[in-house]
Amino acid sequence: MPRFFKNRFTNRGMAPGSLTFIGNKKMESPHISLIEYSKDRLEEKVLDDLTNLDSTKSTPEISWINIYGIHDAELIQQIGQQFDLQALLLEDIVNTDQRPRFYEGEDSLAFILKVITYDGEKKQITSDQISICLGSGFVLSFQEQKTTVFEVVRERLRNSKGRIRSAGTDYLVYALLDTIIDDYLNVVAIIGEEIESLAAIVLKQSGKGLENQFYTYKTEINFLRKIIRPVKEMIIQWQKSETLLVNKKTRTYLQDLADLVTQAEESIEIYNNLLSDGLNIYNTQLSNRANDIMKVLTIFAAVFIPLTFLAGIYGMNFEYIPELSFRYAYPVFWAVVLLLGGGLLVFFHRKKWL
Amino acid sequence: MPRFFKNRFTNRGMAPGSLTFIGNKKMESPHISLIEYSKDRLEEKVLDDLTNLDSTKSTPEISWINIYGIHDAELIQQIGQQFDLQALLLEDIVNTDQRPRFYEGEDSLAFILKVITYDGEKKQITSDQISICLGSGFVLSFQEQKTTVFEVVRERLRNSKGRIRSAGTDYLVYALLDTIIDDYLNVVAIIGEEIESLAAIVLKQSGKGLENQFYTYKTEINFLRKIIRPVKEMIIQWQKSETLLVNKKTRTYLQDLADLVTQAEESIEIYNNLLSDGLNIYNTQLSNRANDIMKVLTIFAAVFIPLTFLAGIYGMNFEYIPELSFRYAYPVFWAVVLLLGGGLLVFFHRKKWL
Amino acid sequence: MPRFFKNRFTNRGMAPGSLTFIGNKKMESPHISLIEYSKDRLEEKVLDDLTNLDSTKSTPEISWINIYGIHDAELIQQIGQQFDLQALLLEDIVNTDQRPRFYEGEDSLAFILKVITYDGEKKQITSDQISICLGSGFVLSFQEQKTTVFEVVRERLRNSKGRIRSAGTDYLVYALLDTIIDDYLNVVAIIGEEIESLAAIVLKQSGKGLENQFYTYKTEINFLRKIIRPVKEMIIQWQKSETLLVNKKTRTYLQDLADLVTQAEESIEIYNNLLSDGLNIYNTQLSNRANDIMKVLTIFAAVFIPLTFLAGIYGMNFEYIPELSFRYAYPVFWAVVLLLGGGLLVFFHRKKWL
Amino acid sequence: MPRFFKNRFTNRGMAPGSLTFIGNKKMESPHISLIEYSKDRLEEKVLDDLTNLDSTKSTPEISWINIYGIHDAELIQQIGQQFDLQALLLEDIVNTDQRPRFYEGEDSLAFILKVITYDGEKKQITSDQISICLGSGFVLSFQEQKTTVFEVVRERLRNSKGRIRSAGTDYLVYALLDTIIDDYLNVVAIIGEEIESLAAIVLKQSGKGLENQFYTYKTEINFLRKIIRPVKEMIIQWQKSETLLVNKKTRTYLQDLADLVTQAEESIEIYNNLLSDGLNIYNTQLSNRANDIMKVLTIFAAVFIPLTFLAGIYGMNFEYIPELSFRYAYPVFWAVVLLLGGGLLVFFHRKKWL
Amino acid sequence: MPRFFKNRFTNRGMAPGSLTFIGNKKMESPHISLIEYSKDRLEEKVLDDLTNLDSTKSTPEISWINIYGIHDAELIQQIGQQFDLQALLLEDIVNTDQRPRFYEGEDSLAFILKVITYDGEKKQITSDQISICLGSGFVLSFQEQKTTVFEVVRERLRNSKGRIRSAGTDYLVYALLDTIIDDYLNVVAIIGEEIESLAAIVLKQSGKGLENQFYTYKTEINFLRKIIRPVKEMIIQWQKSETLLVNKKTRTYLQDLADLVTQAEESIEIYNNLLSDGLNIYNTQLSNRANDIMKVLTIFAAVFIPLTFLAGIYGMNFEYIPELSFRYAYPVFWAVVLLLGGGLLVFFHRKKWL
Repeated sequence: MPRFFKNRFTNRGMAPGSLTFIGNKKMESPHISLIEYSKDRLEEKVLDDLTNLDSTKSTPEISWINIYGIHDAELIQQIGQQFDLQALLLEDIVNTDQRPRFYEGEDSLAFILKVITYDGEKKQITSDQISICLGSGFVLSFQEQKTTVFEVVRERLRNSKGRIRSAGTDYLVYALLDTIIDDYLNVVAIIGEEIESLAAIVLKQSGKGLENQFYTYKTEINFLRKIIRPVKEMIIQWQKSETLLVNKKTRTYLQDLADLVTQAEESIEIYNNLLSDGLNIYNTQLSNRANDIMKVLTIFAAVFIPLTFLAGIYGMNFEYIPELSFRYAYPVFWAVVLLLGGGLLVFFHRKKWL
Repeated sequence: MPRFFKNRFTNRGMAPGSLTFIGNKKMESPHISLIEYSKDRLEEKVLDDLTNLDSTKSTPEISWINIYGIHDAELIQQIGQQFDLQALLLEDIVNTDQRPRFYEGEDSLAFILKVITYDGEKKQITSDQISICLGSGFVLSFQEQKTTVFEVVRERLRNSKGRIRSAGTDYLVYALLDTIIDDYLNVVAIIGEEIESLAAIVLKQSGKGLENQFYTYKTEINFLRKIIRPVKEMIIQWQKSETLLVNKKTRTYLQDLADLVTQAEESIEIYNNLLSDGLNIYNTQLSNRANDIMKVLTIFAAVFIPLTFLAGIYGMNFEYIPELSFRYAYPVFWAVVLLLGGGLLVFFHRKKWL
Repeated sequence: MPRFFKNRFTNRGMAPGSLTFIGNKKMESPHISLIEYSKDRLEEKVLDDLTNLDSTKSTPEISWINIYGIHDAELIQQIGQQFDLQALLLEDIVNTDQRPRFYEGEDSLAFILKVITYDGEKKQITSDQISICLGSGFVLSFQEQKTTVFEVVRERLRNSKGRIRSAGTDYLVYALLDTIIDDYLNVVAIIGEEIESLAAIVLKQSGKGLENQFYTYKTEINFLRKIIRPVKEMIIQWQKSETLLVNKKTRTYLQDLADLVTQAEESIEIYNNLLSDGLNIYNTQLSNRANDIMKVLTIFAAVFIPLTFLAGIYGMNFEYIPELSFRYAYPVFWAVVLLLGGGLLVFFHRKKWL
Repeated sequence: MPRFFKNRFTNRGMAPGSLTFIGNKKMESPHISLIEYSKDRLEEKVLDDLTNLDSTKSTPEISWINIYGIHDAELIQQIGQQFDLQALLLEDIVNTDQRPRFYEGEDSLAFILKVITYDGEKKQITSDQISICLGSGFVLSFQEQKTTVFEVVRERLRNSKGRIRSAGTDYLVYALLDTIIDDYLNVVAIIGEEIESLAAIVLKQSGKGLENQFYTYKTEINFLRKIIRPVKEMIIQWQKSETLLVNKKTRTYLQDLADLVTQAEESIEIYNNLLSDGLNIYNTQLSNRANDIMKVLTIFAAVFIPLTFLAGIYGMNFEYIPELSFRYAYPVFWAVVLLLGGGLLVFFHRKKWL
Repeated sequence: MPRFFKNRFTNRGMAPGSLTFIGNKKMESPHISLIEYSKDRLEEKVLDDLTNLDSTKSTPEISWINIYGIHDAELIQQIGQQFDLQALLLEDIVNTDQRPRFYEGEDSLAFILKVITYDGEKKQITSDQISICLGSGFVLSFQEQKTTVFEVVRERLRNSKGRIRSAGTDYLVYALLDTIIDDYLNVVAIIGEEIESLAAIVLKQSGKGLENQFYTYKTEINFLRKIIRPVKEMIIQWQKSETLLVNKKTRTYLQDLADLVTQAEESIEIYNNLLSDGLNIYNTQLSNRANDIMKVLTIFAAVFIPLTFLAGIYGMNFEYIPELSFRYAYPVFWAVVLLLGGGLLVFFHRKKWL
């Protein structure tokens, strides 16, 4: 299964706007939960079907409906009808290969983006698609499977930490996006730490076959970039949008979100540079080692091959080799061998190979 | 025949606006078909000549005329006259080396772009040029040869799926472009999957001579980029154009098209990076293997060349070599050989070559 | 003589605006020709001096004066005075190292750019500078030497093809620029075809020492880029200029010119990428071949060096070597040799070197 | 501990705006000092607690409160309340992994950036975060630990050098930023000098294993870029801000600051290029050396291996080798050896290997 | 002494605006000269002190005061006071590490930039800083040392060439900048010619150890870019400035200056590309040579090592080696040797190594 881009052939020939789930079905059946809250009250429910949803729209309280499991196109269709969502948006919610994107409708906003997790053992980032819709009085969040990514927001709601209970739906959406982007920064930080360790190993010249690790991290960096880059665009579009759905005070938080994404992007660039530079250095080390190996080979060969030839000479069986019968031929031979060998070693020492 | 850019010498000396077919003639004789439809009715005809075309312009129904085969300059000229198309546009329609481009006339719009197919065995993308003209009440599409690319749109028309039958000519053109761009995404996805597989082979170090595959995919990526990049420009120009030929509702679909092209472009960039990184890693692996080979060579040579010299010494025929007649000379010789050889192996082990 | 950039020291200390020819004198004496035309009439003359030029300005017909040879500064000066050209423009006309540029005067426009030709044998592009001035009722073109680049326009004028005879001076200038830019595209196409062939040779691994070819094409690509890039700027400035010298209808052709230059630029980029990628692959192939060579060396050395040592052992002349007198020592020796050699071959086979 | 990016998991689940120190605690307990000055008077105090702070706000003199140590979240909170600082700003002050940033409140401005020091022995840059807040009549500066970075400004205040005592709080902030940015330039200059030395060593080919140094400097250059790049943004935002807190005259100094940062950025780019180019050259030198080593090996092997074979021939014990009993066989053998060896040396000389 | 960036520690702790000379003192004592001119008159004086300067301001003639030597901070200070120059500008004039910059005061403009000279033997560019101030009726130029760079302008003034004597101060400044930028183009041209020669040497494969030359030119190209790039910015700022100090006619010349700088920049980029491509090719050539060397080694080793083994076999002293006593063993041995050796040569020929 390719990670970077999914085949959409299944969708071919469909009219735009017809709902087809594209992706891997990651859980058995959808799970719908509802949190209704106001400053003073908070109620959590698990919904079995959509019959009670209508009533939530009329209450003055804020309703946050979270759906795990988006492979059930019919369910998504019904929710879309109940909350008046655009057909194109619904289509994109169930297409898990969607590029992160911001949607501005007349009385709703929507965000499609990815939440990421890093498997430290496989050294692989996986992503799930999350779609968030913001209307007056309600927030919808669609996820591919059960995750704990929004648990911290739920806790803050339950404990009424900060201004989250008293602020509006826009602040809830900001809190959800903030959690997702925080996860980006955390994954960048974890991978970054591993990359800095890899660099240290390279500098100590204690590793071998490190190139695969370089490639793995390069690939994950590419994956992160693909996921994070469009999010900045999304936030800038939200900042510029003139929707009434966003409170003035909340707007000031958006710059903070944009800055976080910028920081993540810059860190990704820097880690990408560190990897490229590290691989270059590793290659240079390999060349240096190759030279060292060849020096050893050359010294051994250059010293002993001529000497072996010399010994070969006096192993010949010619009848008339005058040296053979000289009295001191053998010690003289050794003297010559040592001189020659020593001379070559001096030669190689001068060349700084020794 | 060069794939990336065609020689236009044949066109030299022509007045701008004179029609000359540039390209490979891909089919024998042109084939003209007409679909007339309204919400309630749809009629398909194959036209032998252009005599009946005029009448279609007066009907309130939408006429979609599709021409396969554009090498017959005279035919294109006649169609151009009947539908009041600009001379420059006609010239570009029959020049199959045209850069994708948007044309805005007073009461017509036109799009020239490429449709692509991927031959998985040859690992090669081929492109055909498609030109689409949009006037009030009619849509013209010109193709180099018979393809099935628009078959899905025809099916939707016949089955009256979605709003295609009730929407205007602008929506039909949107549907046609959507089909073409969907094909881009599909080809990117298929090539992308192959590139991810190639990367996996590199990581397992199980392949040899992979560099040609890297080059093949790099070339196809270049080819895709050349074809897809100008399409985004084209859609943005369409979005900005103030033509009355495009319905407000259709305009909202254009952003979706632009996003799809952006997604294709980003994926192409990422696959390009994966290929570059993969080739770098493959090169590093080759360096590593070269070092391994040289280590084996050096160990064999460094151990046995000195020993051979030693054996050569005692193969010499000097009359006075005292060692030769020692009683235990032979076993002592073996001991020295084993010590020396063992010592060298220890030395190489310490160097981590073993 | 450097190709990319000429030394301008000769010009030092001149007041700006003083005319000095910078470049290689490419022909003996200047050659001035005049074409006067209107819709119904066309007359061609060769002028020996400038005396008759004045009269052409008063006629209602369009005068196109073409000057081959720009090294005669005085002549250019005189023409400049007769047609009221700016001093800076005249200086630039005779400086053949001028960057392509657009000039807008009060009642005249001017274009300085390069025309290129490709010498397929030397694999080298050469450029000549062409300057075109456009005033009301007249067009001046200055060329370094006699070329046939504008012959196609002259033919169209003579044959009254298209609307060239009935359109104004602006359309004539458009036709001249179109011819020049068409030449760019043709040279790009020819070089591109050669580059695609080079890539095919690399893939077949049938070439040697291809690096020089890569460098040659890289250099020509650089040369092309230097010449073509400023032309786009020039055309865009012309499009934006609010001069009355350009007819509304002609303006629509300018977009076409700009698109052609964009197409040339994009193709240059793609060919540059193909060359870079191809050189990378070629380098990887060289590494692969180096490994293959070393494998052969290592296998031979590792198999026969130990065996030679073994043979050396039993060539020694020690008095007491028990094996020497064993009855089956010799066949046993061969058995050992074959086993050892075979074992090493198996070892190398397992390493996939065989 | 990763240098480039810190893990923020500790912060998860906090409501935005809750204060948590992120970083390394660099000193035991906070240290607060106050300088109150006007044109004629200057008083320095060390504060034990915050009780006296309130009074400073009412005086017409300018109060500069400097806090060393920001790990005490409660203290920062109190200061924030006394001076009406935004919650988000306070959160960022105690997060030492903050990207440099400019904050514009209704009646205050704030700057978060890094001050850097270079440890010449470890060849490592370390950074501390500094936050500066500017309100009417007061300036706050927060630092991670005691540094001497602002000592030069204090000296100028004490000695009443230049216009610092008579100018307002905006000028004080400008002076503080100027000191920090001056430090950037100094560190760039020191590292730059080392990089230029490294390049000189490479050119003399006198170094070995230089790749680690290249990597170290590449890493520091990356680190510098990460710290300095956002500062330019910050200053441009300050320039564009329409705050009343900045005097017209001070504004003219801001361009100077922006220019200094640009200069630092450009120098960083140039040093990065020098490093990349230098590493490329070093790699080419390694290839050249490898070729030299292999030439030595090849010459020795190619000369002596055939000669050894020749000697081996006449060391054979065949009964019938006619040459063995020739009278002049031995001198003839030597003649052949010298001819053959000499011929090979001539051959290698012609190949320019000698 | 680092070339690219100077240490500014000496300046630390100074109030902004205090004058400290930063750089190498390049001449003993300052030298001040004055040229007063109008259309009809020109007078040149050498000034010993500044006492007579005041009077020049009141004359209707244009005064051009040139100062060689800027290390005397006090002198610069006095000049600054007499001509009402900004404190920051004065500080920058005496800081020779200043980034090229444009200053716009209320009734004066100033330019700080570098003049360069190329030492063809050392292959090194050196730069001096030049500052030019333009007020109503006067032009000041500050140089680090005596140079002849402005001599051509003085000659034009003396000879009253062109319109320089009749035009205003703005035209004089334009003429000075034009001279400086002309020097840039000349240095680019000289270096460019050397780089093209280097490329030719690479293509002929006749050079060795060329990598140092590549590095030298890369470094100079970096140096040039650092100096020239900000000059374009400077000229564009001057073009956009709404100062009354610049005549309408002079403005038209500024585009020419900007074009010259653009041309220099583009040439620098192209030469940078040529160097990068050339180094790549040189590396590929080195790989090719390495392969050639290894082929020679492998052929010699692979042919003679097995043969030596064979000779060794029959040099063994086993008592029972039946072949030894065969009558034709020796010629058969030679036949085997020749067959084997020939077979290996055929094998290597087939591999295209011979």
